[in-house]
Amino acid sequence: MTPVQADLYPSRQCAEPRWQERLDPVVHRQDLDNAPIAAELIARFERDGYVVLPKVFSAAEVAVFRRELERMLADEAVVASGKTIQEPDSGAVRSVFDIHRDNPLFARVARDERIAGIARFILGGDLYVHQSRLNFKPGFDGKEFYWHSDFETWHVEDGMPRMRALSCSILLTDNQAHNGPLLLMPGSHRQYIHCVGATPENHYAQSLRRQEVGVPDQVSLSELAASHGIDSAIGPAGSVVLFDCNIMHGSNGNITPDARSNLFYVYNHVGNAVQAPFCEQSPRPPFVAERRDFRALDIQPQRYI
Amino acid sequence: MTPVQADLYPSRQCAEPRWQERLDPVVHRQDLDNAPIAAELIARFERDGYVVLPKVFSAAEVAVFRRELERMLADEAVVASGKTIQEPDSGAVRSVFDIHRDNPLFARVARDERIAGIARFILGGDLYVHQSRLNFKPGFDGKEFYWHSDFETWHVEDGMPRMRALSCSILLTDNQAHNGPLLLMPGSHRQYIHCVGATPENHYAQSLRRQEVGVPDQVSLSELAASHGIDSAIGPAGSVVLFDCNIMHGSNGNITPDARSNLFYVYNHVGNAVQAPFCEQSPRPPFVAERRDFRALDIQPQRYI
Repeated sequence: MTPVQADLYPSRQCAEPRWQERLDPVVHRQDLDNAPIAAELIARFERDGYVVLPKVFSAAEVAVFRRELERMLADEAVVASGKTIQEPDSGAVRSVFDIHRDNPLFARVARDERIAGIARFILGGDLYVHQSRLNFKPGFDGKEFYWHSDFETWHVEDGMPRMRALSCSILLTDNQAHNGPLLLMPGSHRQYIHCVGATPENHYAQSLRRQEVGVPDQVSLSELAASHGIDSAIGPAGSVVLFDCNIMHGSNGNITPDARSNLFYVYNHVGNAVQAPFCEQSPRPPFVAERRDFRALDIQPQRYI
Repeated sequence: MTPVQADLYPSRQCAEPRWQERLDPVVHRQDLDNAPIAAELIARFERDGYVVLPKVFSAAEVAVFRRELERMLADEAVVASGKTIQEPDSGAVRSVFDIHRDNPLFARVARDERIAGIARFILGGDLYVHQSRLNFKPGFDGKEFYWHSDFETWHVEDGMPRMRALSCSILLTDNQAHNGPLLLMPGSHRQYIHCVGATPENHYAQSLRRQEVGVPDQVSLSELAASHGIDSAIGPAGSVVLFDCNIMHGSNGNITPDARSNLFYVYNHVGNAVQAPFCEQSPRPPFVAERRDFRALDIQPQRYI
């Protein structure tokens, strides 16, 4: 496959890192007073590249989600689906992908107006799910996840043309300062860092565990952190973290006894559907990066009791 | 060597973990009004097992210490001393031991009234340095350090009879929530957890990098965390963290660009000097656990400009 569109965000093509300004809006609507949440929160998303919405889901709803999570982690059909990330040693399931298609409950969550409605406002139109997953990060030896921009990977490896996507993480456990919360550099979504190095074949199978290509250089990260600082996304179970596709983020490991789990949906504007990857490799499989169905989500109010 | 004293804190001797109450006082003086710091801070140390004292050392003094740290990390004689911990891959120095003997500047710091004077009050009498080191934890891939009680190791591997020791960490960099600060379970110093498993020979050479024996079981850690919570020792450079020998502590890794360094002194009461280890192995070498000189420190005011 070859790109039909010019590569406006090249990466992994040069021996030296480069920075460029973001070419796309962060919030695609101007009429903030019509937003489904306070205009101030949308403005904060625009400025910082993320926002934490406390307790969007009730404790009872979180309990429903967690029961389904526990069922799935123990379900042999899920383990055998080939759509999971497992621990190299124990085989324990850490992530299950494609839940917006395979799991009826979590497919409804993807269309939930309380989250997808906000994403639709920010991205200015109809959406589809580019990626979905259930994440389970155990206590005691939760692994770190190094700094990255999601968009860099989605662009280079999946062929997402422009920055018109965002991630939505629904916290199923309390996220505290000490148990490896999402770390973000507020405002870093306005710069795009061209990473160094070419993409190896089948990079995804390894990079979802530990990324080594598509990783920003240490000098760029130090500059970004010095100018933007580092914040963490902390909140009780049921809270939602919305973050822009290009914000620099990562997480430290977790030695605390507290496991962390979340539901994760990436919303992409239907006009920004993926094309051929902007690298020499085949695209990642569709359970990691949707390319089977770009139809607009039917966003509706949902309840789960 | 065989212990001349009964083993009041057995560990690594049974197949099942056991808990016991601490047999020793935390603060060995009653006259808190005579303490060199506010009585309230001493009371907090007794209750929580640690206390953070902000900016005990001035920015100018921290600068002096950091210059010496940088000189040492680059000093081939230091690297060749055999008293360092180095990265397995790069050989970069991460810790230098025995600085209370080998380094004139840091030997003075060990006797500094601002820290040793407080330790002398808490431990109720004359002190010597059981262990000293300079730690350098790099940014981007600082490793985690798993939960442990220092006393468990000092008792079993070094032969420290009783809980009458404390650690003093002088922060040479800002410690923030995100760059892998010391995590502590406040109040956990009142229970002693008997760990499972026997001590292998020359355990120290590996355990200083990554501990696997002398590690509490996950059930005990979960119970401790549930009843005590987890706090982090955060403060600007120049601050001092004092913590009891038996408090449960550890640290997460650090993906942030901010390196962390500190000076670390363990003070032990002269009446609690180490004897034969409470295990079947030879004691750890004296640069890790002092057994050459138990004479009382000459504690004096110090300035470093």
